[in-house]
Amino acid sequence: MPSDVTIDELRQRLREISDLSAAASVLHWDQTTAMPTGGAVSRSRQLALLGRLSHERATDPELGVLLDRLMPYAESLPSGHDDRALIEVAQRDFDLAMRVPAEFSERAAGHMSKTYAAWLTARPHDDFVAVQELLETTLELSREYCEFFPDSDHIADPLIDAADQGMTVARIRPVFAELRTGLISLLDHISNSKQVDDEPLRNHFPAAQQARFSTAVIQAMGYDFDRGRLDPTAHPFMTRFAHGDVRITTRTNESFLGEHVFVTIHEAGHALYEQGTRADDDGTPLGSGTSSGMHESQSRLWENIVARSPEFWSYWYPKLQEEFPKQLQNVSLQEFYNAINRVQPSLIRTDADEVTYNLHVMLRFELELDLLEGNISIAELPNTWHERYRDDLGVSAANDRDGVLQDVHWYAGFIGGAFQGYTLGNIIGAQLFEAALHDTPEIYAQIARGEYQPLHDWLRTNIYRIGRRRTPDQLIADVTGSPLDAKPLLNRLQTKFSKIYPE
Amino acid sequence: MPSDVTIDELRQRLREISDLSAAASVLHWDQTTAMPTGGAVSRSRQLALLGRLSHERATDPELGVLLDRLMPYAESLPSGHDDRALIEVAQRDFDLAMRVPAEFSERAAGHMSKTYAAWLTARPHDDFVAVQELLETTLELSREYCEFFPDSDHIADPLIDAADQGMTVARIRPVFAELRTGLISLLDHISNSKQVDDEPLRNHFPAAQQARFSTAVIQAMGYDFDRGRLDPTAHPFMTRFAHGDVRITTRTNESFLGEHVFVTIHEAGHALYEQGTRADDDGTPLGSGTSSGMHESQSRLWENIVARSPEFWSYWYPKLQEEFPKQLQNVSLQEFYNAINRVQPSLIRTDADEVTYNLHVMLRFELELDLLEGNISIAELPNTWHERYRDDLGVSAANDRDGVLQDVHWYAGFIGGAFQGYTLGNIIGAQLFEAALHDTPEIYAQIARGEYQPLHDWLRTNIYRIGRRRTPDQLIADVTGSPLDAKPLLNRLQTKFSKIYPE
Repeated sequence: MPSDVTIDELRQRLREISDLSAAASVLHWDQTTAMPTGGAVSRSRQLALLGRLSHERATDPELGVLLDRLMPYAESLPSGHDDRALIEVAQRDFDLAMRVPAEFSERAAGHMSKTYAAWLTARPHDDFVAVQELLETTLELSREYCEFFPDSDHIADPLIDAADQGMTVARIRPVFAELRTGLISLLDHISNSKQVDDEPLRNHFPAAQQARFSTAVIQAMGYDFDRGRLDPTAHPFMTRFAHGDVRITTRTNESFLGEHVFVTIHEAGHALYEQGTRADDDGTPLGSGTSSGMHESQSRLWENIVARSPEFWSYWYPKLQEEFPKQLQNVSLQEFYNAINRVQPSLIRTDADEVTYNLHVMLRFELELDLLEGNISIAELPNTWHERYRDDLGVSAANDRDGVLQDVHWYAGFIGGAFQGYTLGNIIGAQLFEAALHDTPEIYAQIARGEYQPLHDWLRTNIYRIGRRRTPDQLIADVTGSPLDAKPLLNRLQTKFSKIYPE
Repeated sequence: MPSDVTIDELRQRLREISDLSAAASVLHWDQTTAMPTGGAVSRSRQLALLGRLSHERATDPELGVLLDRLMPYAESLPSGHDDRALIEVAQRDFDLAMRVPAEFSERAAGHMSKTYAAWLTARPHDDFVAVQELLETTLELSREYCEFFPDSDHIADPLIDAADQGMTVARIRPVFAELRTGLISLLDHISNSKQVDDEPLRNHFPAAQQARFSTAVIQAMGYDFDRGRLDPTAHPFMTRFAHGDVRITTRTNESFLGEHVFVTIHEAGHALYEQGTRADDDGTPLGSGTSSGMHESQSRLWENIVARSPEFWSYWYPKLQEEFPKQLQNVSLQEFYNAINRVQPSLIRTDADEVTYNLHVMLRFELELDLLEGNISIAELPNTWHERYRDDLGVSAANDRDGVLQDVHWYAGFIGGAFQGYTLGNIIGAQLFEAALHDTPEIYAQIARGEYQPLHDWLRTNIYRIGRRRTPDQLIADVTGSPLDAKPLLNRLQTKFSKIYPE
């Protein structure tokens, strides 16, 4: 059994990897919130260097030797011991990093940044042809990545596993299929009901007042501004530099009230997860969210389950009216609640309501699989996109800008593994919230009083503080006693929307 | 003679050092402008890591081998050839870095950060005793540093050379002595003249309006906001991340108008230097200011020579009055001009006027030499400080907070080499401006019209674009035909202040 010095050596090595990634995250945050245009070229170079240094350390053969030496020690410890968890998670990260040759990663990164630059121009010009060949190479690269994992059942599994450990096509497909059937039937019911409108949300709502309101909300949720900050960006995100510095960004639409506050709460949900990890896990791989889907479960839980509930607004709506007395004086709580929950099939995923959102996501997930499996070609992608939108959502874009060019994901990364996390997040969020309600039945009554600490504490204890000690599957099972299951989400949406759309 | 690949290899290595330093600068900028308090501990760790990685590369023996291989090539080139300059400057930096053992640098850095933390508490508590022992160690470390350069004439020379290449105690002392005599005589004249008052500057001046005005001024000077930005901090500074990203920070005093605009112009002066280097020098040691003193010459040239001139305000004062109509309606241009140039011996260096400022600096410089030479001890420092203030400036602080605890320099770095650059900057700035006036006699007329491009172009051509191709001495000689000389500064101050204080 190795001496303490060796586990310290592991911690030291992991902290260096973590600190280099954090430094890169600071540079990226600065790039989107502060950097003048003239800084772009040097910033890419600086980020590439930090990425390379961090990757070199993550694949340092000496790290492998150290882990080999520590493994007998890990196995001598009871399952769940912190040292054991640390060694096992570090081993997984090391194995994953070692599977993919540095030459490939650099080649792929170079291609992605070229493709991203092309997409930035192609999208506003509605010019799919300009990126088609690049996207063909992306598809080849995505297949090449998967070939580094020849033991996978489905070609897409390695890309899915990289984001959502343990998830596979075989496991996801039936769960998504059940959800899809349920959602399409719910959407059918809603289409035949009396429609609600979101006119109350359309007016002029000055950015400063929206920001003041959102800040009060996320502070009440428990977002700690001593360990974070909120800034405007074009594309909102959450980023962690350390346990003590977890930042979020948001965007504001001054002519539509139904956006900024939910985007901000969404990102704050991600941030609560990172701020709620254990301080002594900082700088180790244990101290962060355990997967894309699990992270999204937290952002969606706060955004949708909490902040689109009638209880939430029974507390906050009077305060929102104080902020916008002229715009909201003649809007009742019920009208406001209906407006923020209006269901309307549309073209753009990120603007979608709770019911149609997952249809957008699952459509992309299936397209990824079809592309990887070779069922459709990149050339066929734009039309297939439009067809499936007609089939699933009954709408179709007149162009590719709001079609296949809409999301950045395929133009900045692999095809495959990019989208399932969003719907997994909604599914898992509903499962976890059901468990929280079971343990603390008064959660909704507390939300109606603007009290979030009991829910926040429950999440901190059961999810946040676990970090990466448990895989997503283990964590779902620990907390809910069940495997991944679409029913809680479906039940929640059916109950909620049959009230908003009663006939 | 080596192939092109080798000089490219040198550029590649130097760029990596530069990019790592730039990344650290971004983290530092963020620390002072944006970082929440919770980020402090991890940020120190991240900065220490980047510092170590950059130092490892700067002292990589393979860099030494590469430079050895390149030196015959450099010597085969005409003096002034870009490759030759690059190799020579890189060699100087490498030699300097190699002289100081990594063990010492880390020990010193650890001590400095402990001392800085202690000073942060000691200063507001006026508690010199709390830092006395730490400062004794700092003095020992400063001597130890100098011992790595056993071929120096004066013990302080290595510390001075590190900041102001080529400068020595033997060269600085007579120039400073001449300046000191002249300033004390000028101050004597001023004390016996009719005093001017700065009451017009004391009122309420909202920060947003001050910022708007300063922004207009530095934009007119030529500060390029597409390659920079301006943010508030407690302690203003300029920082360069790349040729395309040179940022400045400033502070605002809402009850005194004579601070913010000059601080902002000062930092913009530093930034014009960095923004004006050659774009193709970016990422190499050629692409930055050549010394502390030369850098300060640029900030002071813009702050004092340009922006405290009557011509400058004949253009800007009406605009300032528009910004603050109520506060300035009854203040004439002459009264305003006198107020911003009021001479008043005081305790605080950074608040000092043009005449007394250099007395503050030279007093510190002499204290550094006395400490290093062993003429006075750290224990005697507080009282010696008070005595010399009485002698030179006729004022004396009732405490050490505004005495020896006032400047951060000795509590965050070595004793020695920290202060001479400020006065060298004022001296050099006056010399350079005299040369600029000689080449372009209409500069003041242009300033009176708000036109700075001719001056800016002259500085860009003669100073900024040279970068580190020339040492400070070479650059002064190139531009002025003279060595370092206090007379232009003395002449300028005597002429200017005999008008403001005529009797």
